[in-house]
Amino acid sequence: MQFITEQRLDDDLLEREFTLGDIPGILWTPGSAATPVPLILLGQSPIGLPAMYPRLLDRARAVAAEGYAAAVLELPGSGARPSSAVIDQARVDLQRALRTGEPVTDDIVDRLVLPLVEQAVPELQAALDALLALPELGGPVGYSGGVISIGTRLALVEPRIIAAVLFAGSFVPRSIIEEARQVTIPLHVLLQWDDEGNDRQQALDLFDAFGSTEKTLNANLGGHTGVPQHAGEAAGRFLARHLK
Amino acid sequence: MQFITEQRLDDDLLEREFTLGDIPGILWTPGSAATPVPLILLGQSPIGLPAMYPRLLDRARAVAAEGYAAAVLELPGSGARPSSAVIDQARVDLQRALRTGEPVTDDIVDRLVLPLVEQAVPELQAALDALLALPELGGPVGYSGGVISIGTRLALVEPRIIAAVLFAGSFVPRSIIEEARQVTIPLHVLLQWDDEGNDRQQALDLFDAFGSTEKTLNANLGGHTGVPQHAGEAAGRFLARHLK
Repeated sequence: MQFITEQRLDDDLLEREFTLGDIPGILWTPGSAATPVPLILLGQSPIGLPAMYPRLLDRARAVAAEGYAAAVLELPGSGARPSSAVIDQARVDLQRALRTGEPVTDDIVDRLVLPLVEQAVPELQAALDALLALPELGGPVGYSGGVISIGTRLALVEPRIIAAVLFAGSFVPRSIIEEARQVTIPLHVLLQWDDEGNDRQQALDLFDAFGSTEKTLNANLGGHTGVPQHAGEAAGRFLARHLK
Repeated sequence: MQFITEQRLDDDLLEREFTLGDIPGILWTPGSAATPVPLILLGQSPIGLPAMYPRLLDRARAVAAEGYAAAVLELPGSGARPSSAVIDQARVDLQRALRTGEPVTDDIVDRLVLPLVEQAVPELQAALDALLALPELGGPVGYSGGVISIGTRLALVEPRIIAAVLFAGSFVPRSIIEEARQVTIPLHVLLQWDDEGNDRQQALDLFDAFGSTEKTLNANLGGHTGVPQHAGEAAGRFLARHLK
């Protein structure tokens, strides 16, 4: 991991862009951190880091207010990373289905999401290796947001993550719903009730499937980008409760 | 309304039992209330006031910590009130259906819930008339808990209630789901995902039906009486946000 920029933002948050191999990422650490602080790994959206930056910074600031660091890694095929022909074709197929009102088939969802999960999860685990080697970061690690299938797989295979906020804002392959039955860490699932890029019943089936004995579904009226402020705050309180 | 007992509890909460005609009720006001305080009307369970008292007191204490008063009224046919042959028969039919695994028919649910709604809602409105005439209570009024069909009807017909926490822990007549479409006040709906005395899909249909532009579903793993502490706190924050 190499740091490539470093700036102190006006609220004393230290923002450092880094690369992990050829994958771009950003790390935010609270200015006042004297001892190693817990880390929140922020899930990322396929729209890419440059487009997501303002929303990620807001979330990093909320995380820093609790005394935690936040980090994010670009997804495969997004932002400045090389695109994937398979995922791009699946995305075209998904957009066409949504536009024409045709069903979003299991085949489209599998082609769109599974290659992303397969590639992103080991990358995020490698990022955790590098980040947790920094003296200013300690355990435990919380995960928050991004593509819910990635968060689900990560919650299953990565023992350093002890609690996760998952955003049910994307289509979910059936095989991921099956994997969810083996997830046992505490979960806080956000669902936008009228999300245009989601299947509500599938989101409810996924929530039902999670094997965790502590799981909360926080569903709110509105579309994909309309998560109300109080729901973001509730997600923050969930992480604080488990990381403290 | 007549006060029949008055005691100052050890945390300075003033607890007064009252009767409204022949209906028992309890009013709790925070000790430090100098000016008129907002009121939270606590919904009541059919198990009756004596059996619910410990849980109601906990909720009244949480409400008082926000600086609000809380009041509760016994339901028709519950506790010390005369029983209703119609409701009692419906309750027997419901218990038999749940025990034998037979479907809980619309007919059973209508016979169980609709007479309760028809009688309880005007009683609660009369209680509001009497309570809000007290100099120590001011508006606005929030509603919290109890039989969700009563809360739904009350949210629709009682303009003094500006926000409601509804507990999706009982069966809901189809006609109430239709009424829900006309409800417009902010709602925070609690659902226990594995509630044995509920129909989960019906609860989700009811949440979907509410016409309110601000509505949150907070669903948690566990049975009817297992609402986690953090969910109770989130409901309290919802009321505080709207009553302040």
